[in-house]
Amino acid sequence: MALIVQKYGGTSVGTIDRIRNVATRVKRTRDEGNQVVAVVSAMGGVTDKLIGMAREFGDTPAEREMDVLLSTGEQQSIALVSMALHELGVPALSITGRQAGIRTIGSHTRGRIEAIDPDYMRSCLDAGNALVVAGFQGITPEGLIHTLGRGGSDLTAIAVAAAVGADVCQILTDVDGVYTCDPRIVPDARKLPEISYDEMLELASSGAKVMQSRSVEFAKKYGVIFEVRSSLNDNPGTLVLEEHPDMENVVIRGVSIERSQARVTIIGIPDEPGMSARILCALGDAEINIDMIISNIASDGYARHSFTMHANDLGRAQAALKPVLAEISAQAKVETEAGIAKLSCVGIGMRSHSGVAATMFRALGEVGINIGMISTSEIKIAVTVDETRIEDAARAVHAAFDLDKAPA
Amino acid sequence: MALIVQKYGGTSVGTIDRIRNVATRVKRTRDEGNQVVAVVSAMGGVTDKLIGMAREFGDTPAEREMDVLLSTGEQQSIALVSMALHELGVPALSITGRQAGIRTIGSHTRGRIEAIDPDYMRSCLDAGNALVVAGFQGITPEGLIHTLGRGGSDLTAIAVAAAVGADVCQILTDVDGVYTCDPRIVPDARKLPEISYDEMLELASSGAKVMQSRSVEFAKKYGVIFEVRSSLNDNPGTLVLEEHPDMENVVIRGVSIERSQARVTIIGIPDEPGMSARILCALGDAEINIDMIISNIASDGYARHSFTMHANDLGRAQAALKPVLAEISAQAKVETEAGIAKLSCVGIGMRSHSGVAATMFRALGEVGINIGMISTSEIKIAVTVDETRIEDAARAVHAAFDLDKAPA
Repeated sequence: MALIVQKYGGTSVGTIDRIRNVATRVKRTRDEGNQVVAVVSAMGGVTDKLIGMAREFGDTPAEREMDVLLSTGEQQSIALVSMALHELGVPALSITGRQAGIRTIGSHTRGRIEAIDPDYMRSCLDAGNALVVAGFQGITPEGLIHTLGRGGSDLTAIAVAAAVGADVCQILTDVDGVYTCDPRIVPDARKLPEISYDEMLELASSGAKVMQSRSVEFAKKYGVIFEVRSSLNDNPGTLVLEEHPDMENVVIRGVSIERSQARVTIIGIPDEPGMSARILCALGDAEINIDMIISNIASDGYARHSFTMHANDLGRAQAALKPVLAEISAQAKVETEAGIAKLSCVGIGMRSHSGVAATMFRALGEVGINIGMISTSEIKIAVTVDETRIEDAARAVHAAFDLDKAPA
Repeated sequence: MALIVQKYGGTSVGTIDRIRNVATRVKRTRDEGNQVVAVVSAMGGVTDKLIGMAREFGDTPAEREMDVLLSTGEQQSIALVSMALHELGVPALSITGRQAGIRTIGSHTRGRIEAIDPDYMRSCLDAGNALVVAGFQGITPEGLIHTLGRGGSDLTAIAVAAAVGADVCQILTDVDGVYTCDPRIVPDARKLPEISYDEMLELASSGAKVMQSRSVEFAKKYGVIFEVRSSLNDNPGTLVLEEHPDMENVVIRGVSIERSQARVTIIGIPDEPGMSARILCALGDAEINIDMIISNIASDGYARHSFTMHANDLGRAQAALKPVLAEISAQAKVETEAGIAKLSCVGIGMRSHSGVAATMFRALGEVGINIGMISTSEIKIAVTVDETRIEDAARAVHAAFDLDKAPA
C-alpha cells in the first residue's frame, strides 16, 4: 500500500462534473490499494471573481483581508470534493490549511511554508479516510489565515507529501508531462520520463510554466519526488527527482522559449563601484523583474549594462531609470529594444560536455537567425533572438541535439 | 464612549453598494464616539447557492462538510466589509468565528454557542479597530468549523455582545422595530419603544418572524439588551429587555398572526396512558413541527387530540399517522382541516388582568368571526380562525385593546 498525494488545480475542479471526475480518480487510486491525500485549488474563476470584488474597495485592498477572502475558494472546493467522494461511497474528510497544520511565515498573500504538523492528517488517514486538503493556505504564528500566492497549491501538495511521508506526489494538470520543448511549436517534441530538480528549475525560470520555481525548490530541499501528469488520462507523466546514474544520459534535456521580451541597455555609466547597484535598485524598487543581466566595458571607457525584462515592463523601467541616470552622469543614456524572445537550452549533461554552445549557435546560424544577448549558467545557455524567428530557432536547436529521439 | 455591537443580515451586505452603506453606518457610529463590533451574515443568496452546489452530490450532504462549505459565505463578507471600512479610512479587522473565540457544541449545521473567549476581540478593540465578526459560525471542541443554523447571525451578535460587555446590541434589519401588529395588515399598528424578552419570545413563536426564539432566549439568559431597528434609516427601533416598572403598562403588547395553518384531529383513541406519546412520536419522527395541542375526552368515552401545523406538512402528517393509528385501534380516525390561521394576543400584563379572553372573543364575535381551537400560555391567548377572516380578526382585536394608542 502506497500513500499518494494528488494535486488538482482550479481547472480540474472547475465544475460539478469535473469535481465528480476528481472523486472518481481518487476512488480508483484507493481501489488500487493506496491511501490518498488530494490537495485542491479553488474552482476555476472563483479566485479571480473574489479579487474583482475586493478591487471594488480600492486598488490595494488590505492583504490580511485578501487572505481571509481568497482562502474561502479552496475551502469551498475541499467541502465539495469530499461530498463527491461520499457520493461514491468513499469515506473522506475536508482539511483546511489550519487543520493540515501548515504553519507559514512572511507577508500576507505571499506566505512561505515553514513547517507542517501532520498529526491531524495522520490520524484521519489512519482511520481510513481519503483526505481533501485546501491548497494555497496556511496559518501565521499569530493564528491568522495566510495564503501562499501564485502556484501555492503545488507548494502545498509537495509540502504535505513531505510531511506525511508520501511515496509519491502527483501534480495533475492539463499537460501530459514535461516535454523536450513545447509540442505546439516543435511537433516531434518528446515527453521526458524523468528530469532533475535543477533542470526543472531552469526550465521553470526560462518560460516553461509547468510549475513555479519555489515548488520545485521545496521538493528538492525535502527530497520529494513528484510526477507531473495529466488529470484527463492515465498516461504516465514526468518524474521530477534528484539526478541519478540511471537517468537518460543526455547533454540537453530540453529547450524552452519565452516571448515578449525587451532589452534595456544603459550606456555611458562611469566605471566606478556602486553604479550597477544603484541602477538595479531603481528597477527593484519599481518591482520590475529583470531576467538576463549583461555588463561590459565599452571602448570609450564607460560601462554598459544590458537587461532583459517582459516587454510590458519597458515603460515603467524607463520611468524608473530616468532620475537615477540623471544623478549618475550626464553621459548616461538608455537604449531599448522590444520584439525579442529568449531561447534556453537546459541540461545537467552540459557540465561535462564541451561544445554545447557551439552546436547551438551553429544550428541557429544555419537557419539565418542572428543572436542578440547570451547568458549562461552551469546547466543552461540562453540567447535572445528576434521574436519573429523564435519558433524556427526552437525547431533548429531541438533538431541539432536530436531531442526527438530517446537516448540509447 | 459606548461599545456597540451591530448585526447586519444578508440583505444589508447583499451587494457591493450595500456593503459600502454598512461601512458608512459603522463609521458614523464610531465618529459619534463609540467602539463598534459589526456582526455580518453571508451576502444575500450566497448561502442558498452553496447549498445548491452541495445538493448536486446527494440530498443529504455530510454535515461536517456543509459547515466547511457554508461558513465561507460569512468569511467572504467579513473581508469585504473590512475592506469597505478601510476605503473610508476606518481601521478594521475581520474576525472569523474561530478568532472570535466562539466555542460551540451540538451537531454539525446546528451548533449551539457554549462560551466565547473574547480575548482576541478585546485586544483588537483596544488597539482602536472596528471589528467585523463572521456570524453563524463557531468552533467545536475538536477544532472543527461549526455553523449555527438558521438565525445564527443574530445569535452570534447577542453572544458577542454578552462576551465583550457591549452597552447595546443593535439588530439591524429590514423592519423598523417590533410593532403591535404587522402594519401591512393593521395600518394603525404602533411601533413599540420596548418589549420584554418573554413577550418577544411569544411573538416569535407566534408568527412575528423578526427574530428566532433561541436568540431571544440567549439574550434573556445573559441579560443582553438588544434593539431591533432598520438598517435603512436612523429611527430608533424597539428595545428588547427584561420587564421593568417603567415599561408601558399594558395588558396586551401585541397581536401576531400565522397563516397557512392546518388542523389534524384524531378521534377514537382509547383513553389509556401512552396513546398521546405514540402519536406525537410518529409526528416527531417525521420531523413535523406541531404548534397547538388540544386534547379532550369525547362523549363516546374515546379521547380526541387536535394539533395545528403548517398546511404544507399535512400530507406528510397523514402518512406518518396512518400506521400508528392502525396499531392503536380500529376506531381511530384522522380528520383534517386546512385553510385556517392563528391569531395570538401577547402581553405580560395578562398575568394580572382578568377578562382578556373575554375582550378578545367579544371583538371577534362582533365582526362575525367564529373561533376554532383555543390555546393559552401565561402571557398569550391564541385562537384559530378561518384563514379568509384573519386580517379582519387582527384589526378587530387590535382595536379592542386600543393598541394603536400609546398608554397613558
